[in-house]
Amino acid sequence: MSRALHDLANGTLFGVALNYQGLLNQRIAEFEQAPYQKPPVKPVLFIKTPNTRNSHDGVVLHPHGERLQPGPALGVVIGKSASRVSVESALEHVAGYTIVNEFSLPEDSYYRPAVKAKCRDGFCALGPELVPHDQVANPHQLDLKLFVNGELRQQNSTTNFVRGIPQLIAEISEFMTLHEGDVLITGTPEGRVDVQPGDTVEVEISGLGRLVNHIVAE
Amino acid sequence: MSRALHDLANGTLFGVALNYQGLLNQRIAEFEQAPYQKPPVKPVLFIKTPNTRNSHDGVVLHPHGERLQPGPALGVVIGKSASRVSVESALEHVAGYTIVNEFSLPEDSYYRPAVKAKCRDGFCALGPELVPHDQVANPHQLDLKLFVNGELRQQNSTTNFVRGIPQLIAEISEFMTLHEGDVLITGTPEGRVDVQPGDTVEVEISGLGRLVNHIVAE
Repeated sequence: MSRALHDLANGTLFGVALNYQGLLNQRIAEFEQAPYQKPPVKPVLFIKTPNTRNSHDGVVLHPHGERLQPGPALGVVIGKSASRVSVESALEHVAGYTIVNEFSLPEDSYYRPAVKAKCRDGFCALGPELVPHDQVANPHQLDLKLFVNGELRQQNSTTNFVRGIPQLIAEISEFMTLHEGDVLITGTPEGRVDVQPGDTVEVEISGLGRLVNHIVAE
Repeated sequence: MSRALHDLANGTLFGVALNYQGLLNQRIAEFEQAPYQKPPVKPVLFIKTPNTRNSHDGVVLHPHGERLQPGPALGVVIGKSASRVSVESALEHVAGYTIVNEFSLPEDSYYRPAVKAKCRDGFCALGPELVPHDQVANPHQLDLKLFVNGELRQQNSTTNFVRGIPQLIAEISEFMTLHEGDVLITGTPEGRVDVQPGDTVEVEISGLGRLVNHIVAE
């Protein structure tokens, strides 16, 4: 991880589930059943704990007897504390952007991701760089690609966010303070794939570079 | 918060849901319905993010238009990194114990506590002291009491844990490393009560003292 990224993205890692329209559409039927009976009305959050931090070129352990899925995502690094900020002023609280690969065990229910599926050691790679906010023309118009062993396996665009970055920051900061160094992981699109020991996994986001990780048997 | 507690309990705050037998029994019927159809087989974890940290004598804001419930709990402070430790050696990784008041908005579903209900600013008070492991005769035989404005409102004992401390450490460290300074919040018993602005809330655990907090309107 570059020095700037390490210094500037050292806070809490907040994941946002179900933030791609295609993924939400796939799940609508499930939400209409018990116990929820309606789709989520607010962002569904989860935490990647500090033990999950990993970096560009880092190794990710494939847990024995489990399935492992990479989670390509745009990371938004907070630059200035945000408490109850408006949608209009939310982007003033952003330092910049980075690539996140938010590894998970697949889960049947998307409603509230389980700590056990999300928080194994090394399950959240960030990097390679922090690109400052003013160097990204439009964070809601970035192509996001996942390659496994050089082959394109997942592709989407941040134009398909359910909630854009200002709305996420406004809705989350309504009930909790976001601090400098916190990272919002803005969601992984539908179509997650399984990876195996020996695979090389790369996430590319336009203008942010490519984040590489290596899957190794536990 | 005492200096020792501040220095020694500065890591991730892991909550364990449903760890009192009486609470689990109340919820069994719910788990047998969709989508889960069985009670949880592993500890149900949640995270109290760093913005929730609060201390002895600290103010807790009562969110406007919501219900607020204190969550008396025994806190176990990790003293030495734990990765895949056995039940037998788990207690070697414990530095000591403290009182936790894990405030929440009440939730309909206990299965996976929502970040929004658990992680408002100041929603996790710790203190007043860290009592070293060797000064607590038996952490599975402690009385736990909640007082609101001096009146006893909730009472239980750590003898009623679903999972004891060694089992929690062993099962959690199976998939994630617990680090020095991390805190396991071992669960809140059944019978949570609502508190109101103006209330003084105290949690007493035998041998660990009394943790006092003040509820103030937002």
